[in-house]
Amino acid sequence: MFYHIKELQYEAKPTRPDPVYAKKLQEILGGQFGEISVMMQYLFQGFNGRADAKYRDLCLDIGTEEMAHVEMLATLIARLLDNAPVKDQQAAYASNPVVAAVMGGMSPQHAIVSGLGAQAVDSVGYPWNSRYIISSGNLLADFRANLNAESQGRLQAVRLYEIAEDPGVKDTLSFLIARDTAHQNQWAAAIAELEQREKDIVVPTTFPRQLQKNEVAYDLYNLSRGEESAKGRWAKGPSMDGKANFRYVSEPVPFGPKPFLVPAPVYIHNTLPMFKH
Amino acid sequence: MFYHIKELQYEAKPTRPDPVYAKKLQEILGGQFGEISVMMQYLFQGFNGRADAKYRDLCLDIGTEEMAHVEMLATLIARLLDNAPVKDQQAAYASNPVVAAVMGGMSPQHAIVSGLGAQAVDSVGYPWNSRYIISSGNLLADFRANLNAESQGRLQAVRLYEIAEDPGVKDTLSFLIARDTAHQNQWAAAIAELEQREKDIVVPTTFPRQLQKNEVAYDLYNLSRGEESAKGRWAKGPSMDGKANFRYVSEPVPFGPKPFLVPAPVYIHNTLPMFKH
Amino acid sequence: MFYHIKELQYEAKPTRPDPVYAKKLQEILGGQFGEISVMMQYLFQGFNGRADAKYRDLCLDIGTEEMAHVEMLATLIARLLDNAPVKDQQAAYASNPVVAAVMGGMSPQHAIVSGLGAQAVDSVGYPWNSRYIISSGNLLADFRANLNAESQGRLQAVRLYEIAEDPGVKDTLSFLIARDTAHQNQWAAAIAELEQREKDIVVPTTFPRQLQKNEVAYDLYNLSRGEESAKGRWAKGPSMDGKANFRYVSEPVPFGPKPFLVPAPVYIHNTLPMFKH
Amino acid sequence: MFYHIKELQYEAKPTRPDPVYAKKLQEILGGQFGEISVMMQYLFQGFNGRADAKYRDLCLDIGTEEMAHVEMLATLIARLLDNAPVKDQQAAYASNPVVAAVMGGMSPQHAIVSGLGAQAVDSVGYPWNSRYIISSGNLLADFRANLNAESQGRLQAVRLYEIAEDPGVKDTLSFLIARDTAHQNQWAAAIAELEQREKDIVVPTTFPRQLQKNEVAYDLYNLSRGEESAKGRWAKGPSMDGKANFRYVSEPVPFGPKPFLVPAPVYIHNTLPMFKH
Amino acid sequence: MFYHIKELQYEAKPTRPDPVYAKKLQEILGGQFGEISVMMQYLFQGFNGRADAKYRDLCLDIGTEEMAHVEMLATLIARLLDNAPVKDQQAAYASNPVVAAVMGGMSPQHAIVSGLGAQAVDSVGYPWNSRYIISSGNLLADFRANLNAESQGRLQAVRLYEIAEDPGVKDTLSFLIARDTAHQNQWAAAIAELEQREKDIVVPTTFPRQLQKNEVAYDLYNLSRGEESAKGRWAKGPSMDGKANFRYVSEPVPFGPKPFLVPAPVYIHNTLPMFKH
Amino acid sequence: MFYHIKELQYEAKPTRPDPVYAKKLQEILGGQFGEISVMMQYLFQGFNGRADAKYRDLCLDIGTEEMAHVEMLATLIARLLDNAPVKDQQAAYASNPVVAAVMGGMSPQHAIVSGLGAQAVDSVGYPWNSRYIISSGNLLADFRANLNAESQGRLQAVRLYEIAEDPGVKDTLSFLIARDTAHQNQWAAAIAELEQREKDIVVPTTFPRQLQKNEVAYDLYNLSRGEESAKGRWAKGPSMDGKANFRYVSEPVPFGPKPFLVPAPVYIHNTLPMFKH
Repeated sequence: MFYHIKELQYEAKPTRPDPVYAKKLQEILGGQFGEISVMMQYLFQGFNGRADAKYRDLCLDIGTEEMAHVEMLATLIARLLDNAPVKDQQAAYASNPVVAAVMGGMSPQHAIVSGLGAQAVDSVGYPWNSRYIISSGNLLADFRANLNAESQGRLQAVRLYEIAEDPGVKDTLSFLIARDTAHQNQWAAAIAELEQREKDIVVPTTFPRQLQKNEVAYDLYNLSRGEESAKGRWAKGPSMDGKANFRYVSEPVPFGPKPFLVPAPVYIHNTLPMFKH
Repeated sequence: MFYHIKELQYEAKPTRPDPVYAKKLQEILGGQFGEISVMMQYLFQGFNGRADAKYRDLCLDIGTEEMAHVEMLATLIARLLDNAPVKDQQAAYASNPVVAAVMGGMSPQHAIVSGLGAQAVDSVGYPWNSRYIISSGNLLADFRANLNAESQGRLQAVRLYEIAEDPGVKDTLSFLIARDTAHQNQWAAAIAELEQREKDIVVPTTFPRQLQKNEVAYDLYNLSRGEESAKGRWAKGPSMDGKANFRYVSEPVPFGPKPFLVPAPVYIHNTLPMFKH
Repeated sequence: MFYHIKELQYEAKPTRPDPVYAKKLQEILGGQFGEISVMMQYLFQGFNGRADAKYRDLCLDIGTEEMAHVEMLATLIARLLDNAPVKDQQAAYASNPVVAAVMGGMSPQHAIVSGLGAQAVDSVGYPWNSRYIISSGNLLADFRANLNAESQGRLQAVRLYEIAEDPGVKDTLSFLIARDTAHQNQWAAAIAELEQREKDIVVPTTFPRQLQKNEVAYDLYNLSRGEESAKGRWAKGPSMDGKANFRYVSEPVPFGPKPFLVPAPVYIHNTLPMFKH
Repeated sequence: MFYHIKELQYEAKPTRPDPVYAKKLQEILGGQFGEISVMMQYLFQGFNGRADAKYRDLCLDIGTEEMAHVEMLATLIARLLDNAPVKDQQAAYASNPVVAAVMGGMSPQHAIVSGLGAQAVDSVGYPWNSRYIISSGNLLADFRANLNAESQGRLQAVRLYEIAEDPGVKDTLSFLIARDTAHQNQWAAAIAELEQREKDIVVPTTFPRQLQKNEVAYDLYNLSRGEESAKGRWAKGPSMDGKANFRYVSEPVPFGPKPFLVPAPVYIHNTLPMFKH
Repeated sequence: MFYHIKELQYEAKPTRPDPVYAKKLQEILGGQFGEISVMMQYLFQGFNGRADAKYRDLCLDIGTEEMAHVEMLATLIARLLDNAPVKDQQAAYASNPVVAAVMGGMSPQHAIVSGLGAQAVDSVGYPWNSRYIISSGNLLADFRANLNAESQGRLQAVRLYEIAEDPGVKDTLSFLIARDTAHQNQWAAAIAELEQREKDIVVPTTFPRQLQKNEVAYDLYNLSRGEESAKGRWAKGPSMDGKANFRYVSEPVPFGPKPFLVPAPVYIHNTLPMFKH
Repeated sequence: MFYHIKELQYEAKPTRPDPVYAKKLQEILGGQFGEISVMMQYLFQGFNGRADAKYRDLCLDIGTEEMAHVEMLATLIARLLDNAPVKDQQAAYASNPVVAAVMGGMSPQHAIVSGLGAQAVDSVGYPWNSRYIISSGNLLADFRANLNAESQGRLQAVRLYEIAEDPGVKDTLSFLIARDTAHQNQWAAAIAELEQREKDIVVPTTFPRQLQKNEVAYDLYNLSRGEESAKGRWAKGPSMDGKANFRYVSEPVPFGPKPFLVPAPVYIHNTLPMFKH
């Protein structure tokens, strides 16, 4: 169960409205790696938690914080839309091409649909959807998803910081970027703990290795001509799980035969093969 | 540019048809973490590659392999659909409830739409879409996405292995599971190499730390009552980036004020606040 | 069965082309609350109608009218795209930034995909989809959906009227806005009739009240700190269904316990709880 | 900013697992009118609130409660999936067609993707997306959306109650159904208050009536042959806004002419009209 | 503008309810190539019509007929859902596995969401969306889209006919299949007329051939090893447009060089290439 | 199984960056009829091929080529994004409205999400999804889908050629347009071969004609008032399949009765009809 207080986790106040930037900022609210994604991902991992209480609690702690980030960004976007001069754009076009160009880049839905409010969409207006998130029940897998989400999320926030000019916007972003630093460190720590505990890094660690085709489990197949890929850590030396050595296969060949599919029954009305012309 | 040979990378031949299992297998072909996802993700990372040639080549090597996995799974699914008795289900219901139950779980689109062929959809028939993938240009971020994809992907393949009974299906899956082992190790190696080279683990490592709100960059806020989350590696001791110590904040409070939004211009036709009744 | 006549229900002729406005106008054609939504919603409610003939007929009357609105808006959009100078934009940029800014805001798909024709998409190019509509079989519920759709739809049309400058566009919109007035009144009347007939306002009225947890059926829980919400009609006095009094709960507490989920079977390969380190 | 406590708002504990019912229950968690929809809709209406503080607070109070409902349903679904015998379905088919039929109706993603956890999807596995929600800034419009959502939501919960057999599931649903009763009453009260304050029922009430084509603002066009629709409250007598009388038009005719579209410029490569053969 | 009459274009009355078949039938109502697709595609082609009046009229004639097909299929589905015993499925499972298996294959949304009504979705519950349709302004292109839609649509209707057992269902399908025959013939005739008139078959025929790289305009590249593809009409002899001869290239090679992408600016925070270790 | 070589099939190198054009070019990479669509469509038709080996090989030949086109376009887009001045747009707005207008039309995701890389989306940022493609098992149907895709695709490429100014871009497009010419000819040839072999043009040709309602199989119903549609090849004379004559029905009437739906069971909680007031 949840409680809300009116105070924001951190201030979210631009110096002046900027509806074009508001549109861009939607990316880290409602985009693939926006705050809604991490909020929903961590909460569902928490709600579904069947492992140790501390992992469940960690997911719910951070997931609840991400809700505050959703609130901050929604507030910031709404303020960037304050008094957007949507009405007189044509006049603006004629008299001031700078204003016109700026207004031209505003999301039409911010004016027509949401009435100068934030939306749960990304920077091109695509709606948030739950295929962005994962809660698999395997925490080593899921915490890697979380570390990835925080990495992509911080990268996007940094890019938005770089193109921001408003000190208020930059201040809010500097807070969110710092929190992403915290979360990257925290998920990395949780991953390290799980890898140590499970004594393996290959998810799921519980699948008996002898059931997989072990003879191909450490190969790199050079399927894109040119051997630049032979120069990395991944191509030689001990594998990261410590169980074998990497092997670089310069000229990979197929292990299987050509497939042949039997014709479909006639009531499927597929094209049937013609055995003689 | 690409070339195709008819041979499969590995055999994909079930002992007998099983249209219900075919539907489930769609998950690792066209699902969120299926082979189409990794194929498209790695190829786009390769095509967009602006960094060292070896990373670009690595993405294209593995991406090209994933295309072969798409082909193998499509073939396996088509064969599991061989001669599916879609026509006489009603009769089957009456005479053999076991057959009926099995047929009842088949995807109707495998009969009506794809004519006993594989589709680029997941196990509930939802189409593959490109919001499943990421190519951000930042390789540390992207390789974490790749490691996550291989982790979720292997987990799903293992679950499908567990519920499979057909030795041919299990054999193909044992190959794919082994290749996921290879790819998890390889992306983990690439991540380790990049973290070492960039001397940091926080993506993007190139953003000056002093520009973020450093005082909150290592805190864990206990926003879900109960302190189980204090017991993990993430809550105390040196942070994973080695730059600070984790801090556990038992009773977190807001840093910001209550927000207040100004009314919208009248031509937006929002509800206006009533200052006096 | 349907018949079409070539005449438009009302004129749809702009004074001059305006491809940027055409893009915005797509919102009320193919958006969440656009004409396609109401057309499809009412027609499906009519086709699925199992209650009195007059409700079925009402849905089909208005649904058939909405098809004419789809036609009018498609025509208006196509005309706003007449002779759009998509070819020489670069030249325009150099010589006339006003023209350039205007063209820059045009939907690229109006040029590349639809050949200066209307599309079944919204103002950000997102395709119409049938999850926008509802036909539940319960008419009190559905007529509330209809009243909502006409309310959101008229609001959006009014906003588009405010930012329009073309008298032809304004004329067409003044017709559509008037029809939305009619439809809001009509659905409101149908709702009033059903509420009176069913002697209740809580959908579905047919569910025995004693089967719900009646002791919480009129509470408002103050879960967002601060009691501003206590000042409304909804917080005290008789409830709108006339069956009880509203109750304001200032400090709501949970009724349930902390949940605990059992571990998954091992063949699911979830992370298992570690009972002792 | 938000806080979480571990206690559920109300108990969510089935007597025994039932993975087929778990799939159905997903509808009111992640469906068009599920708890995620109302949670996100009310929170965004709150975050975007530019009108009186009491409306903002009301949205945030109820939106925060809906988060607790998301948590309860996720928990209930996870428990319905406890120990789902996904592994030995084939064996079950042979030995016990009843078990087999039940298992056959389970969502494959509950086993393969979410590891016996709840997902943010509906009962056919379609992901939740933010086009389900609206926050328009006009509260009379939005509260009608809210009343509609609570009506559809309670209807679906009641249908799920009817087909439930587990007393634990029924108990949880009886709580949610009662809360929907409360919310329908509350939004209805807020609507009544706004209609009274704005002295009109036609959204947006702030658009000058003389700007719309008033002569068609109260007509019902009999566009589906047969005059059953003339028999309702909506067809005659004073309109619901009290500003006119309804008018029933038995044989509606078009007001506009046949449209004619000019050919596209040649560089669009549309088919051009042939003026002479 | 449209008019509706209550009579169906053709009877749509099953002999008895069959909710599992109802789900399958959704494919040709709301699927990729269902009746909603052709209705919307032809109507938009008509509304957007800038060429000869006869083509516009043809699109509107057939588009208006498809609306009647939507109505027929919606009616047929609703009737197949009549009295679906959704309530006592568990009891059915125990007593009659045949009934249980049948019921288990019903769409849960037909019971929970649409109240035994048709939906605008396909056979796996995926909503219809407007990316299924095309109205490009080039009629030769669009009529090929139409011929394709009628071909796929008739194929699916035939497959549904094959698996139907109810004579009423078969009768309705026999009508729809015949109409698809008519429409395939009609679009084929329109295509032939346009190809003759434009004296070319390559869309768009208006693009000057000398502007394309003509030397590769009739090649078939053997990129999948094995020369089975050399045996078809497409590999040798005069091309279908009569302007050249087909050419089979057994060992195709690239015409372009290896690409190299320059590094991104530093403020994008991509991984930069390391020129020296 | 696939192999990749680094060389592009054809050069893809713009003379100078142009991020606005990059956004438009996304249409033929990741749009409804972009290169990803044809690549995936042909590959799945090949993988699923149950008919003659030559058809399977043809699909795999062309599908493999389309992968090279995906690579070329991704490369071209990445280069058009080289050094996009995303950072100083505000300054640009003030000093140079032309630059500003150009930058304003760039996709925000090209800067924020993909780091100046191509995406698998269309020109309005909508993600590619697999409902764009079809592999039905009936090759005559599918080759019509292929001919349609190549027609729409070439039309879009030509429109992009028309609005391009960069000679490098035009050169790449002239290659792709020529290949579309080849593919239209090839699929047309394959269609002709199949029509000849199956001795019919109506898909599926294998369905016994006597099972359809033959008396309506060649009618054109004049459902849109006005008889312009009577003037085409489709309205009179022998049908294209040579089995009958077209018939034009000037005043079409329904063949079916008014439908009536029975009320739903009470536990569905639909509105029940009121038999007496």
